[in-house]
Amino acid sequence: MDKDTLLDCHRRISPHIHRTPVFSSRSLNRMAGADMVFKCENFQRGGSFKPRGAVNAILCLTEEQQEKGVVTHSSGNFAQALSLAAGRIGVQAYIVMPSNAPQVKKNAVMEYGGEIIECDPTLAARESEAARIVKETGATFIHPSNDMDVIVGQGTACLELLEEEQNLHYVVAPVGGGGLIAGTALAAYYFGKGCAVVGGEPIAVDDAYRSLKSGKIESNKTTDTIADGLKTQLGDKNFPILQKHVESIVRVTESEIIEAMRLIWERMKIVVEPSSAVALAAVLKEREKFENQKVGIILSGGNVDFRFKGRP
Amino acid sequence: MDKDTLLDCHRRISPHIHRTPVFSSRSLNRMAGADMVFKCENFQRGGSFKPRGAVNAILCLTEEQQEKGVVTHSSGNFAQALSLAAGRIGVQAYIVMPSNAPQVKKNAVMEYGGEIIECDPTLAARESEAARIVKETGATFIHPSNDMDVIVGQGTACLELLEEEQNLHYVVAPVGGGGLIAGTALAAYYFGKGCAVVGGEPIAVDDAYRSLKSGKIESNKTTDTIADGLKTQLGDKNFPILQKHVESIVRVTESEIIEAMRLIWERMKIVVEPSSAVALAAVLKEREKFENQKVGIILSGGNVDFRFKGRP
Repeated sequence: MDKDTLLDCHRRISPHIHRTPVFSSRSLNRMAGADMVFKCENFQRGGSFKPRGAVNAILCLTEEQQEKGVVTHSSGNFAQALSLAAGRIGVQAYIVMPSNAPQVKKNAVMEYGGEIIECDPTLAARESEAARIVKETGATFIHPSNDMDVIVGQGTACLELLEEEQNLHYVVAPVGGGGLIAGTALAAYYFGKGCAVVGGEPIAVDDAYRSLKSGKIESNKTTDTIADGLKTQLGDKNFPILQKHVESIVRVTESEIIEAMRLIWERMKIVVEPSSAVALAAVLKEREKFENQKVGIILSGGNVDFRFKGRP
Repeated sequence: MDKDTLLDCHRRISPHIHRTPVFSSRSLNRMAGADMVFKCENFQRGGSFKPRGAVNAILCLTEEQQEKGVVTHSSGNFAQALSLAAGRIGVQAYIVMPSNAPQVKKNAVMEYGGEIIECDPTLAARESEAARIVKETGATFIHPSNDMDVIVGQGTACLELLEEEQNLHYVVAPVGGGGLIAGTALAAYYFGKGCAVVGGEPIAVDDAYRSLKSGKIESNKTTDTIADGLKTQLGDKNFPILQKHVESIVRVTESEIIEAMRLIWERMKIVVEPSSAVALAAVLKEREKFENQKVGIILSGGNVDFRFKGRP
């Protein structure tokens, strides 16, 4: 892993992903007392940063592997992302989804050409179903966050941000399974000028915060957060990167997440999902830390299910 | 009024307004069967297209007039817009607002430095209060939509769109007081290549549709629409422009407006207000008309009051 790993990845995936815009907001800057730039991965293909890693992982397979397809288990954005990436590259994607996954997510996977395999809504069932498919089809399992090719792919969002904004003091990203924050940390390490990486994490699922304290991968006892992309825990590939390259993790409450999301919708006029708002919530919470600093924020995605009942 | 009126206006106001981006969406194009480009005035200063006209109207005043300030009555985006424009140019703005206007709108006016004068929530009270201020202060009254400088200013959104997308078959904009659609029609007439202008209007407040049919300015009997920017009626300055340069008006139901708004939020990941969604609703409704055509859509604004009660 060096600078070129990230640059090669970016070159490899560029035909398949959007170079997303970087936004800023005077009124949010005033509120935070900081100079913030937002990398808008809500405008990425599939509505989140995740296709970056999915495309890279598939393109890093041998031709023979590609012919047999790829498999993952996910109920969220990575299911869509792998399906989208596989569809673009012409590879079969098998997506193991819990039977209670929202129909809108299943539809998105199918639209992109992925094959859904339903299973019971437990991690054990998802893993054993994915293992069965690997065995039967020879497809390659791709983990949503604990895979080096995925991690490097996710880091390209921060790489692009640093190409446009070279003098960031901080980059802040949400922490869920650890793929995005690990990739972000690698990009900041290799391409930032002393740019520190801070994670934002809901208090309700603060496994990463506790993992960095204890020095081993911790689990969550509940999954009770509105930030549904951040419920998963770290893995053995991304945790060492966090230990080495993440300065700190700021924990935020559910109401801080909701308030940050409201501010982004209201002031920036863009739709982000709750997980995305966690990074802004962290900056607003630790005001003294970020005051007068130039801060990059990764807005990770914008997949919100709007089902208006009557008038919104 | 000729080409240069619009070009001069655009040059005049450019230091004070954003050149807003033009977005497109593959999935919305598939749904409409058309090639649509969206001019994103939700990203304009003040959250709507209205500062374009407000800035132009103020800059067209003499120095002596500017010293005495400007006045308008509005409970919506024009109150914010005139206040913002006046603040940037260094002119006093008096904003007559009904006493029941939402606090969030009053706050926005005050943040930009405008002075709010409250009155009873009737059109008669608003008009007489504005007249009193004109008499007492010598300030110039600026109408939100029935003023040629305002109309030309609003037309610059379409002018910018046509600079980037020269071969539009149609431009579609919402119709409220008539300022935006009239300005859009002038821009399309002078700078489009046979570009037809279509208005979108809620059936509940279809005064413009009926006015074009009857040949005289009609009123609305109700104001019962979610598209709260479109309740007002046409005026003697903009109506003749509509008669000459607007091809037709497509009327849409409340549920079509809500569905179009949902699609924009969900697929484009941007926040637009209901009035903005009326134009897309019109395109989706008249599918045969717009099929396989290149269609510009003016997304007029994104001022939505998000007050989440608990989890959204």
